[in-house]
Amino acid sequence: MTIGPIDHVAVVVRSIEESLPRYAELFGLRPGRIYELPAQRSRVCFLPTGPDPAARLELVQPIDGESGVARFLSVRGEGLHHVCLRSTDLPADLAALAARDVELIDTAPRPGAEGQVAFVHPRSLNGVLWELLTPPQT
Amino acid sequence: MTIGPIDHVAVVVRSIEESLPRYAELFGLRPGRIYELPAQRSRVCFLPTGPDPAARLELVQPIDGESGVARFLSVRGEGLHHVCLRSTDLPADLAALAARDVELIDTAPRPGAEGQVAFVHPRSLNGVLWELLTPPQT
Repeated sequence: MTIGPIDHVAVVVRSIEESLPRYAELFGLRPGRIYELPAQRSRVCFLPTGPDPAARLELVQPIDGESGVARFLSVRGEGLHHVCLRSTDLPADLAALAARDVELIDTAPRPGAEGQVAFVHPRSLNGVLWELLTPPQT
Repeated sequence: MTIGPIDHVAVVVRSIEESLPRYAELFGLRPGRIYELPAQRSRVCFLPTGPDPAARLELVQPIDGESGVARFLSVRGEGLHHVCLRSTDLPADLAALAARDVELIDTAPRPGAEGQVAFVHPRSLNGVLWELLTPPQT
């Protein structure tokens, strides 16, 4: 098993640009790059929270009403959306999860804002939407 | 400003004991100590997710129907509850937040399962219940 540590915790927001100044003002957190993800009908921004390159916050903003993130925002409002754990071997970890009857949203790795990602359905473990991420090769 | 990194992400669960085997089976995560917190009418268990002592998951289980965590479980079911960021000077950080019109649930540090903690109301920033934690002196 190659899962962990926490890479990021994602928060759905109405507007990244309107939210970022408050993270700086309240917590002293500075944003990284903003990624435009038209295929996911969203845009995201990572905020490092310390010297470790993992342990980031991710702000996720829907760009229209057509995504799961947009539905989340419409139904529940802004708030915690998912937790991302790192995987050093995502295909093997997904196969191991599938063999344990875990409900995978993505049965194969797909490109994320950074690296390769796959999501696990909240029904699988404690109502949490889990993301697994293999960071890009550096 | 002395806030960050992420110390833990908390998940409300019906039963810590029934949840823990699944974290081991699916993610290879082993639990730390279980804390009984009668004053908070809950019990919690931390699961390290990597070599960094921060970046943990926290499972939170209400022990009766009388807490905010119990109400969360009753209304929303199991799921993500709060994000905890470390603070090296909690009284100063709380004063700075109050000066910026942040709605504090705890206006002064109080004992948590570990160290001193204070919670910030979700209305203050993107619908997220934020916890600030100064770890115990080691």
